[in-house]
Amino acid sequence: MRWWGWGDPAHAAPPPAHALEWLEGRLGALGRERAPVALEEVRLPEPTLGAETGARLTELVGEDGVRADREARVLHAAGKGYPDLVRLRAGDASPAPDAVVWPRSHEEVRGVLELCAREGVAVVPFGGGTSVVGGVEPWRGSFGAVIALDLGRLDGLVELDERSLTVAVEPGLRGPELEALLEPRGLTLGHFPQSFEHISIGGAVATRSAGQASTGFGRIDDLVVGVRMASPSAELSLAAVPASAAGPDLRELVVGSEGVLGVITQATLRVRRRADEVRYEAWMLPSFEEGAEVLRELEQDGAAPDVTRLSDEAETEMSLALAGSGSWKQSLAHRYLRLRGVASGCLTILGWEDEPVRLRERRSAVNGALGRHGAVALGQSPGRAWARGRFHAPYLRDDLLARGVMVETLETATTWSQLASLHGAVREALEAHAPLVGCHVSHLYPTGASLYFTFLARQQEGEEIAQWQAAKRAASDAILAAGGTITHHHAVGRDHAGWLEREIGPTGIALLRAAKSELDPAGIMNPGKLLPPG
Amino acid sequence: MRWWGWGDPAHAAPPPAHALEWLEGRLGALGRERAPVALEEVRLPEPTLGAETGARLTELVGEDGVRADREARVLHAAGKGYPDLVRLRAGDASPAPDAVVWPRSHEEVRGVLELCAREGVAVVPFGGGTSVVGGVEPWRGSFGAVIALDLGRLDGLVELDERSLTVAVEPGLRGPELEALLEPRGLTLGHFPQSFEHISIGGAVATRSAGQASTGFGRIDDLVVGVRMASPSAELSLAAVPASAAGPDLRELVVGSEGVLGVITQATLRVRRRADEVRYEAWMLPSFEEGAEVLRELEQDGAAPDVTRLSDEAETEMSLALAGSGSWKQSLAHRYLRLRGVASGCLTILGWEDEPVRLRERRSAVNGALGRHGAVALGQSPGRAWARGRFHAPYLRDDLLARGVMVETLETATTWSQLASLHGAVREALEAHAPLVGCHVSHLYPTGASLYFTFLARQQEGEEIAQWQAAKRAASDAILAAGGTITHHHAVGRDHAGWLEREIGPTGIALLRAAKSELDPAGIMNPGKLLPPG
Repeated sequence: MRWWGWGDPAHAAPPPAHALEWLEGRLGALGRERAPVALEEVRLPEPTLGAETGARLTELVGEDGVRADREARVLHAAGKGYPDLVRLRAGDASPAPDAVVWPRSHEEVRGVLELCAREGVAVVPFGGGTSVVGGVEPWRGSFGAVIALDLGRLDGLVELDERSLTVAVEPGLRGPELEALLEPRGLTLGHFPQSFEHISIGGAVATRSAGQASTGFGRIDDLVVGVRMASPSAELSLAAVPASAAGPDLRELVVGSEGVLGVITQATLRVRRRADEVRYEAWMLPSFEEGAEVLRELEQDGAAPDVTRLSDEAETEMSLALAGSGSWKQSLAHRYLRLRGVASGCLTILGWEDEPVRLRERRSAVNGALGRHGAVALGQSPGRAWARGRFHAPYLRDDLLARGVMVETLETATTWSQLASLHGAVREALEAHAPLVGCHVSHLYPTGASLYFTFLARQQEGEEIAQWQAAKRAASDAILAAGGTITHHHAVGRDHAGWLEREIGPTGIALLRAAKSELDPAGIMNPGKLLPPG
Repeated sequence: MRWWGWGDPAHAAPPPAHALEWLEGRLGALGRERAPVALEEVRLPEPTLGAETGARLTELVGEDGVRADREARVLHAAGKGYPDLVRLRAGDASPAPDAVVWPRSHEEVRGVLELCAREGVAVVPFGGGTSVVGGVEPWRGSFGAVIALDLGRLDGLVELDERSLTVAVEPGLRGPELEALLEPRGLTLGHFPQSFEHISIGGAVATRSAGQASTGFGRIDDLVVGVRMASPSAELSLAAVPASAAGPDLRELVVGSEGVLGVITQATLRVRRRADEVRYEAWMLPSFEEGAEVLRELEQDGAAPDVTRLSDEAETEMSLALAGSGSWKQSLAHRYLRLRGVASGCLTILGWEDEPVRLRERRSAVNGALGRHGAVALGQSPGRAWARGRFHAPYLRDDLLARGVMVETLETATTWSQLASLHGAVREALEAHAPLVGCHVSHLYPTGASLYFTFLARQQEGEEIAQWQAAKRAASDAILAAGGTITHHHAVGRDHAGWLEREIGPTGIALLRAAKSELDPAGIMNPGKLLPPG
């Protein structure tokens, strides 16, 4: 993972000239391409971890388990949110941890947490480092020092129970590594967020991650059946039972706890048999409103595809305009507009993973409904192209950042009754801050759906963070006012902590604080995340 | 509801002579039928609620909202567990509340709780009163007085959102009342526990109830999307969103909280469209082990019926032997044994609720699998008979109690890997205490299933409670030792409170206590339930 951006440079695909032209037409002239500063030039604060504490940490996890060098500190200085990347590219790694610690076992995690609680050192659990909401930024709060606790060496498969279709894993195991272990047994976890190539399983559990196929399967909160968590003052172990009425479900207190209650050291998750057939296809729907209505009907009838994404008119236009030359979208953009004589339409991606007979039946029900609503089938090749590129959007962000474009995404979910008004309200709020705002529906539920917004504007030089904050604040206020959740799958982290109380009320906050006091009385765990400051 | 037993006397169906004969053959000679004592003879403790507190309660909820008469106190003295009924039938209502209070609104509940916290009066929330684990027994703990808080007047439908398929209701609304309100709109909650005819919706939420169709749909924890709870020191309100990553899901702290954290004053639940077709049928499977294996395959393939119950050999025999004369079971018992020349087999009930085409497809997949495993179809009429009588088993218990028979049920769930060993261990533990032990699998999940045990023995006169405790203790220990949950759908209440720590650990208990301290610092809410004493 690049320290200043996303992923593996080999996957980057610079935007084509016509895309940049179109962007300039909408945003105004873009800046020249600017590279991030060199690693050696990144500004790092003086480390403040006491030598004695450092020595004790080394005793606990071994010589190779503690690093305080520049590279390790910079790589753990932030996640992959827009403000993180803006700061890092400009050479600002001021929140960097004083040291990075790699424990190898539950017991070592417990030892490190006990030590840090005694010594007053803040601890930021670090899995894949892919948070886009500031979840792994090493804030030290009121503490004198802060360490990043990298779970990369705690990455084993503990037990695969093929009869019960569960797998117990350590938190640092990466998504692709787990899939590679499951594939030879014909199994899959099925949890595929856009960040899939870099996530850790512990991070997915700690952030209540969703996954692109989660209309059908793969929401992490639906997969977790057992957890083990190490906290500074205790450990919590909840065995894998299929269902229980033994009081409140405390697994649901661990899922989404974002490192503020402790470190997930093991998770037992449901796995599923790999599908015999996978099919992705694209459709053009006449309007966002009608499209959402078809999706509601399908979902409430139990007939929705596993992957379902419906772009609104603006996102459809943006998506076609930014597509690479020679791509299906490019030819579609021309062909569709000419053929239909319409200026708009809503691009829809549908995907199924199932055994062939069932897939055919499910697909035919969907086709019927879409046809009745005037949708036009675009076939499988655009669907396949989406599936191939499904993890690559963050690379485009790096390219746009280099050219002085603010590009950010945010997401929410609400009931079907409130979906249209929420869509309108958030769009309006964002349009005051960004000339380009796109949105798609994804993740259908019988009671509602999620909305995912993307917005672009030219960066205001020197004011990049304030510019972003203003847009983010406006959207977050609009989401809460319209009855949405502050986040459907990005988690709360640093960026949404100020809005959580509006969602769960002062009593909800008090309950989370009570749990934290019980498990982390010194308050060293991931300060400033999830819970509002104070 | 009868104060000494179950339900409406009109539904009682006394066991036929041949059933009693069979029972005597297995248990030894039964006693003569003994009626419960008359209401006037029930022993009640002197009420200890101060006159001033009583007057203040009346101010809060009105003259007709407070009762301290014999009938009201006896009706709220216990739930419907075996020890409850043994005591009540013998005229012992010693745990009766000092008064019963009927609030009409969330605000009145808050007022009563605040008053009781100030005055040191324990509060036991009372919905349908159907708990079989002592969940509504009015223990006063260390407090001078105890009231039952009957939610029967807080029973409105607040909002039906037909677009989002959700309904918001007050807690005292009964299951059948809600279904009657939903039916004209073509909707159903689909939550049908055996106690359905008497449950309150708030009680189902507070006890994490399952429902007989929950292999397909209807588990209450899967239906709750929003809650409002009144506690002595605060109120918690969580809006209905389809899914969220905004931290831990606090709804899951309210679901299953059994009145120890506060009173659920509103719940928003998913509803579903009523099925066009309902079909129940019965099968005979060659063995419990093989039957469980078929069910596992079906469930993991996403092909299980909505209702799935597989009795083991002993339960099958018991069920056929206890059936009424002229019933399908009776003729089956003769026909099957003669036809097959076998002495055993496992009775299986399957049920579907779906639209006709889909139902036919789902059923045909099941038929194929069952046929391959040597199952024999018994047709629809036994299935229909089961469906007609699905809520009536508690009546039989009353009849057997009258004849000096201990009859009790308990249940658990575990992974498929552990199911056979758990079945054997619990059966063995119970057989040391009861000559007749039956078990069925119900409630299938991809990772495991629940097991429901019924056991019968002649009562040891004068030692009825100790006799029951010994059997219950042995079974509960065996469940925990074999990796099961202490309860899959009956809840913890009084009877399982001593086992909860073995399931969720000291840290789990500490987290629940921390939540309770936050919401109920005086500890007046339902003392002695859910959390272990001390």
